[in-house]
Amino acid sequence: MNKAEKNVQREDKKGYPSPSLQRLPLYLRQLKQYQREGVEKASCTRIAQDLGLISVQVRKDLSMTGIAGRPKVGYNIDELISRIESFLGWDKQRKAVLVGAGALGGAILGYAGFVEHGLSICAAFDVDEKKIGTSIRSCPVYSLDDLEKFVEQNQIVIGIVTVPQSVAQLVTDKMVKAGIRAIWNYSPVRLNVPSNVVCETVQLSSSFAVLSSKVKSMLAEEKKKEQSKQ
Amino acid sequence: MNKAEKNVQREDKKGYPSPSLQRLPLYLRQLKQYQREGVEKASCTRIAQDLGLISVQVRKDLSMTGIAGRPKVGYNIDELISRIESFLGWDKQRKAVLVGAGALGGAILGYAGFVEHGLSICAAFDVDEKKIGTSIRSCPVYSLDDLEKFVEQNQIVIGIVTVPQSVAQLVTDKMVKAGIRAIWNYSPVRLNVPSNVVCETVQLSSSFAVLSSKVKSMLAEEKKKEQSKQ
Repeated sequence: MNKAEKNVQREDKKGYPSPSLQRLPLYLRQLKQYQREGVEKASCTRIAQDLGLISVQVRKDLSMTGIAGRPKVGYNIDELISRIESFLGWDKQRKAVLVGAGALGGAILGYAGFVEHGLSICAAFDVDEKKIGTSIRSCPVYSLDDLEKFVEQNQIVIGIVTVPQSVAQLVTDKMVKAGIRAIWNYSPVRLNVPSNVVCETVQLSSSFAVLSSKVKSMLAEEKKKEQSKQ
Repeated sequence: MNKAEKNVQREDKKGYPSPSLQRLPLYLRQLKQYQREGVEKASCTRIAQDLGLISVQVRKDLSMTGIAGRPKVGYNIDELISRIESFLGWDKQRKAVLVGAGALGGAILGYAGFVEHGLSICAAFDVDEKKIGTSIRSCPVYSLDDLEKFVEQNQIVIGIVTVPQSVAQLVTDKMVKAGIRAIWNYSPVRLNVPSNVVCETVQLSSSFAVLSSKVKSMLAEEKKKEQSKQ
């Protein structure tokens, strides 16, 4: 069995489809909006309408967390929020380091939303002498040489990779050697990690592919309409 | 019929599932890798193995582009690349503007990969007097007041939203008014756009949800094993 097959097996074993997992933060945001508005219960139908989704899909997604909605009453919003947060482990703090204190790294350090999700970025690392010793958005920037010691001493679980593509695998190997157990990869390459380390790649191009396809369909449809008029 | 229902209908009409669209850039990257290695044909099985996917899924995804693989021979790689690029409209250049020349905006302007996908970011806009008149990665930064004129004169199709959440809808409304037809949203809010404008939101939290769920499963499994040993 080769590496790819092993990965597929591991995915199957865990059993939660990525698209469903990816929607959980959308539900959380909407539910917190309801909370602010003083709403206490919400049905699948209402959540689906407010998020532009299909009701059946919402019920299926939320059932991952083990919650059951009551017919004609819906979900208790406070309970559903804490179920989702606990399901994702967002009710606990997870310590992370970030390697690559450039523009993208800075943008991630400045993204306040992640704190709400239990992500605590303790330090950034870089090889650029000008950056080492400074801090970005109150996060200290250290030399990459100090990564291993820092990870060990602070029991860091998550490593965020925001370096250029050409050194992404090298940095990942350093993180794994240091004891990092989860890699959040912002570089556009597929990283190799051992089987006891998990990896998730942010694909900015994937989102652009969806947008591009929508634009193309829209423009093609308009052209067709224009031609049928003539 | 409310807005949410309309959106769902529009999605159904187009018929391509987002997860499949999102995988197309992965295939493209792998196929270009084959090209560099001098490989001319590749089967579903091989592509699936190299990307950690299931063969049936790969065949289904690629069939969106209208290509057919030949049994025991596989796909012609050059042809498959041009089919995917043409399917996504990445063989044509699309002009874009970006509003919000902060850290995230800078990171996107620095992301070389988008050029390959036909995305040409012509200008950035901001309200910060210190940024206006400068340029970021050779992209000029103008005052937000000049957005409408610029979009009209340069026939811009795509608007990239990299402003803070609190002003994202305001900026979107300005873009739509200026004639932008497609919004690529990097802010963590759901934007309202009229039915003749498409919108795609990059959900960094969604990727973190997948990572979090993987971490939680992994740690829980290890704890179970540890306990069964005792």
